[in-house]
Amino acid sequence: MTDRLPEPVLVVGTGLLGTSLGLALRRHGVDVLLADANAEHVRTASGLGAGRPHAGERPGLVVVAVPPDHVGAEVARALVETDALVTDVGSVKTAPLRALDGLAGTERYVGSHPMAGSERSGPLAASATLFDGRPWAVTPHEGSAPATVEAVTELARLAGASVVRLSPEEHDLAVARTSHLPHLLAVLVAGRLADAPAEHLALSGQGVRDVTRVAGGDPALWEQIVTGNASAVAGLLTQVRDQLDVLIDAVSTGEREPLATILERGVAGTLAIPGKHGGPPRPTGSVFVSVPDHPGELARLFADAGESGVNIEDVRIDHDPARDTGQVELVVDEARAEHLMASLESRGWAIHR
Amino acid sequence: MTDRLPEPVLVVGTGLLGTSLGLALRRHGVDVLLADANAEHVRTASGLGAGRPHAGERPGLVVVAVPPDHVGAEVARALVETDALVTDVGSVKTAPLRALDGLAGTERYVGSHPMAGSERSGPLAASATLFDGRPWAVTPHEGSAPATVEAVTELARLAGASVVRLSPEEHDLAVARTSHLPHLLAVLVAGRLADAPAEHLALSGQGVRDVTRVAGGDPALWEQIVTGNASAVAGLLTQVRDQLDVLIDAVSTGEREPLATILERGVAGTLAIPGKHGGPPRPTGSVFVSVPDHPGELARLFADAGESGVNIEDVRIDHDPARDTGQVELVVDEARAEHLMASLESRGWAIHR
Repeated sequence: MTDRLPEPVLVVGTGLLGTSLGLALRRHGVDVLLADANAEHVRTASGLGAGRPHAGERPGLVVVAVPPDHVGAEVARALVETDALVTDVGSVKTAPLRALDGLAGTERYVGSHPMAGSERSGPLAASATLFDGRPWAVTPHEGSAPATVEAVTELARLAGASVVRLSPEEHDLAVARTSHLPHLLAVLVAGRLADAPAEHLALSGQGVRDVTRVAGGDPALWEQIVTGNASAVAGLLTQVRDQLDVLIDAVSTGEREPLATILERGVAGTLAIPGKHGGPPRPTGSVFVSVPDHPGELARLFADAGESGVNIEDVRIDHDPARDTGQVELVVDEARAEHLMASLESRGWAIHR
Repeated sequence: MTDRLPEPVLVVGTGLLGTSLGLALRRHGVDVLLADANAEHVRTASGLGAGRPHAGERPGLVVVAVPPDHVGAEVARALVETDALVTDVGSVKTAPLRALDGLAGTERYVGSHPMAGSERSGPLAASATLFDGRPWAVTPHEGSAPATVEAVTELARLAGASVVRLSPEEHDLAVARTSHLPHLLAVLVAGRLADAPAEHLALSGQGVRDVTRVAGGDPALWEQIVTGNASAVAGLLTQVRDQLDVLIDAVSTGEREPLATILERGVAGTLAIPGKHGGPPRPTGSVFVSVPDHPGELARLFADAGESGVNIEDVRIDHDPARDTGQVELVVDEARAEHLMASLESRGWAIHR
């Protein structure tokens, strides 16, 4: 129960996001109704404790959590068929709004977008903690009523997320830059590996793995996301093509200055990404440790690292292709790296920086 | 001491790679001589135990470990001034070979390239274990003598690496694909972030961080690497531009089929990268755990995970921007994910998949 969230909340679409949202709201005792074109998904989500199957009850708030292609139509339907407030959790925000053009009741709609997901999908992949601490964009349009904005903000807050308010247009530019462009360029890099000879791929290191990981995401979903944000994505892709032309020219002619300019701009871009704690990025240092590749050794390492009192900011594991050891990279506050190194070495670990 | 490595080994260039190689060889008692244009670097490397300063002794094997721009000239000098076998550890292999064209004694040269490095540089960043289990390309040219190939192979083996034999041309195509192209496209993605508004960057998730991480590498070094492998890199960049044109056209016109083809090819590429253990990629599953963000908690998590008997293949940590918790992603054999989840849940961890 909550004062500012009009109940019951009807979740339309019980996939990963819808079911996770139901689970998160149920933690606070919110009355959640579940609907899906696939009745089996509703039964699964309900069985997991995400809410009860919708049986015609009049909702206070409708959350549309269907695939991107269907968001506009489902939001329109909710506005026409109910007098509830309405939001959606889709990855693009201007396209669904265009689908509502000329419709009555759009003051009852505010779009939103939690920055959370998984490489898996469906209700069985859901979790009550999926949104914990994640950014959740709330995107009022010009006609949104303040009460709608407030209810959707409260929804995101109850789900455990951290609200970022943006206009629908700004949101779509932001995700084009921070999500859709990185995805598509990772796809182009990965595409060049698809038919590479095995002896070329044998030289793959952590770099290419990191760059291409997101390219493994569901093509059917990404097709809808990219198409839904076509204008912002095409604009950025065109900027990248212009830079790529400069790059190809510089590499082909051996001119170093334009190449240096592009490389330096890349460094500036990596520094512009906010630190994982939301503040400015803090300088970090890495300590590399050789770890035998079997259960228990990582636990021993983290126990010893914990003893040193140094907080681990990030971890990467690179397994040895030749034998049963791994290289574990512990990323820590730069000022604490020396201390961690000394502490682990004194406990017998093989270290390098 | 070793039978097949002609000693002493003279390491020319005592930066990260040269000093690490000295340290690795000293583990086996190999007699290592150190030289560098920067005398301070030689003193540092020598002080770390990487070998003794070169004072005119006649080497059995010269290892050129200087910046890419200078590799060709240093290899030529070693062939002319000594009767030693010669190798180098630079990132490109055809360009130095061209610099030797017409020179006598090239049967004493075989290029090589360890797939190891760090975001740091200089002798103080060195480690005896830098090459442990890493691929190390050995790239004989047509005129290389078998004894030279054997000595360089032994060098890589003594350093702890896993030898991959390729021709210089194949090597340069391979690293263009698995290293130089990913780097440059990561740079282009990062470049689009450099002047993005802060509220756009607030939506950054793990995806864009992974894609752009390598773009933070030293521009001066990458300028030399890319220029040294210009032809292979330009060829791949041109292929990417062609795909980018198709992509821009598909996104702009809303045609889904070419977009789907490109996305699916990206998935195929991620699956083509060999598994971290060198074999075919194994299906993995992720278990996500909410972990309080202070020392000791990770140790407790890994101890509990170790108790479950499940081997952790990879770890990612995503700190909560809003509060002091992190999401830890444990990547494990897919068939073991359910067991790990149940085991951690029974020990009180907040889990989702």
